[in-house]
Amino acid sequence: MFELKIDNAKYWRDCVESIVSLIDEGLFNINKDGISLKAMDPSSISMVSFFMPSKSFSKFSVEKSSAVGLNLENLSKILSTTRDGESLIIKDADNKVLLEFVGPGGKRRFKIQMIEVKKSVEKEPNVQFDAHIEIIGEPFKDMIKDAALMSSYIAFRASKDQFMVNARGDSGELEEQHEKEGSAIKKVEAQKNADATFNLEFLESMVKSCPLGSTIKIDLKTNEPMKIGYNIGDSEIVYYLAPYMEE
Amino acid sequence: MFELKIDNAKYWRDCVESIVSLIDEGLFNINKDGISLKAMDPSSISMVSFFMPSKSFSKFSVEKSSAVGLNLENLSKILSTTRDGESLIIKDADNKVLLEFVGPGGKRRFKIQMIEVKKSVEKEPNVQFDAHIEIIGEPFKDMIKDAALMSSYIAFRASKDQFMVNARGDSGELEEQHEKEGSAIKKVEAQKNADATFNLEFLESMVKSCPLGSTIKIDLKTNEPMKIGYNIGDSEIVYYLAPYMEE
Amino acid sequence: MFELKIDNAKYWRDCVESIVSLIDEGLFNINKDGISLKAMDPSSISMVSFFMPSKSFSKFSVEKSSAVGLNLENLSKILSTTRDGESLIIKDADNKVLLEFVGPGGKRRFKIQMIEVKKSVEKEPNVQFDAHIEIIGEPFKDMIKDAALMSSYIAFRASKDQFMVNARGDSGELEEQHEKEGSAIKKVEAQKNADATFNLEFLESMVKSCPLGSTIKIDLKTNEPMKIGYNIGDSEIVYYLAPYMEE
Repeated sequence: MFELKIDNAKYWRDCVESIVSLIDEGLFNINKDGISLKAMDPSSISMVSFFMPSKSFSKFSVEKSSAVGLNLENLSKILSTTRDGESLIIKDADNKVLLEFVGPGGKRRFKIQMIEVKKSVEKEPNVQFDAHIEIIGEPFKDMIKDAALMSSYIAFRASKDQFMVNARGDSGELEEQHEKEGSAIKKVEAQKNADATFNLEFLESMVKSCPLGSTIKIDLKTNEPMKIGYNIGDSEIVYYLAPYMEE
Repeated sequence: MFELKIDNAKYWRDCVESIVSLIDEGLFNINKDGISLKAMDPSSISMVSFFMPSKSFSKFSVEKSSAVGLNLENLSKILSTTRDGESLIIKDADNKVLLEFVGPGGKRRFKIQMIEVKKSVEKEPNVQFDAHIEIIGEPFKDMIKDAALMSSYIAFRASKDQFMVNARGDSGELEEQHEKEGSAIKKVEAQKNADATFNLEFLESMVKSCPLGSTIKIDLKTNEPMKIGYNIGDSEIVYYLAPYMEE
Repeated sequence: MFELKIDNAKYWRDCVESIVSLIDEGLFNINKDGISLKAMDPSSISMVSFFMPSKSFSKFSVEKSSAVGLNLENLSKILSTTRDGESLIIKDADNKVLLEFVGPGGKRRFKIQMIEVKKSVEKEPNVQFDAHIEIIGEPFKDMIKDAALMSSYIAFRASKDQFMVNARGDSGELEEQHEKEGSAIKKVEAQKNADATFNLEFLESMVKSCPLGSTIKIDLKTNEPMKIGYNIGDSEIVYYLAPYMEE
């Protein structure tokens, strides 16, 4: 039994969007610390790890830890109806989840069925990263779009002072060179050069929900999975993505 | 023989849009009172009744009553080309209708063929309604969108003080409760509780052309057709929609 | 060997868009006067002739005249990534063309393969036109849209004082009459009446890239190809379009 209240329903909407971009159904773990969700995408190439602390809620009453399986696409569609000024109450009732939007226009209650979701492996990849980059969301999204003109893959390379982007395909080649402390890059730290190639479609899904003007944190190691994440308010969203290795 | 002039061509465009959302071809009756059109949609589930009074025209010269059959989709496409500041002259000529847009850029004349349209039954359903609701257009459109997430049907329930919306489907259930004198509802009057279910697609088409900020009037009686309408300027548009009865 | 620099990369983007609307691949001729391109569309119904003078470039270093064949769709997609404030360097290297965008966010380098493009006939149609019309781009685009409601073809007629547009099809007929010195027409000069019919789809492609508020120049002769063109900055874009002759 739980009852949670979020003063600004749009906050929760944005969080769920960042998860649904990768996975269709998920298991939320609700305990006294907050709400978390860890899941692999169906192809097992990527992983999402989400955490929203209890302090983000104006009411957070959780009797005992619960695991709530939901169809995230349904949930996301319902949250997309959020009107300005609505708060949101989330509670359970008879194996259903009740979403109650309360706003100046009245109350809107959606009841959705919980579903069984197989608990996916919860272990995050254990990588000793060599490079750490912090970059503003919009220019990073632009780099992804540039690369998509040339290929389905993008190569990142971090050295002591630079962050490089590379993509090549039948129609040509792209090379971008971003200096430390340029307008896009907030930080580049590299103990060693790091160089790895990733699937662009997954990256697009991962950065889609990054709030305007926010910083994206990237950790790299040559030919190892990358870690990429950002904050939505007090919540943390982190993705892991396996590298693409040419055969 | 008739010749009509509307100072703002966009007014006539908006009126025709409210009709074409339900029916493809229609028979306009033009007499000294104004222009009217009554028609059932092809599936006979709904009916539209439109009336634009002669005073809405800056010139209204009608020799004798005429019935003008038109392909409304064509008419609507032509009206969608209306430029700012254009007036519109509508007249007949050799079994054709001439639409002359006069604006600062010159004259644009469209001539379209009249078509034969079978006169459809003109009797409006005779229902003694139990409840009358007045509601702002935008929040009502939002209710329809909410319900569409859950089902293809929407149930309305009016009681003395409340207007309730309900929709349920495989993915869950929606219940909205709108208090009399909330921000959306202007009026709820019910001599008896009224409760009926309707097809969402038809409702969407009906309210699509409701002008921004306008009030929609709804009349309900349990398991009977609903009446729903609004004004566009001096013109009146009223729809009837048969209830959906679960078998 | 050439190296060209354009201070505002968007200028070059707009020029290439005006060409790619008609042809997919093209041969740019680069010599000391500037860059030019002449090509027929694949159906040989229309021709485009583009010229950008050397003075439009802030650097224009051309060792000897070159002919550079490019896939224009690729080029156009790459140029569409132009960010605010970026300049563009275009140079050749090993049978490739290098496009280097330099902006506050760093450097972005695209390398694309040159392709072999058969040199198409470069002779522009030799027509002694009877009428010359100058018309603002937006109202001309609107006329094309009006005509497209009625037909796939549009007839232009120019007389001493008027520019007329005509289109007729199954659903009806359009006739537009634009007075000399109306709000759309800047100039109508006709030594003789000129009357010809053209394919709307080609015309749409031709005027698509006309900059906002610019003047389109049209030359007509009865049942002969029309000439239609406009400027983008210092660059000139001219199209020829064969008339449609009813059989």
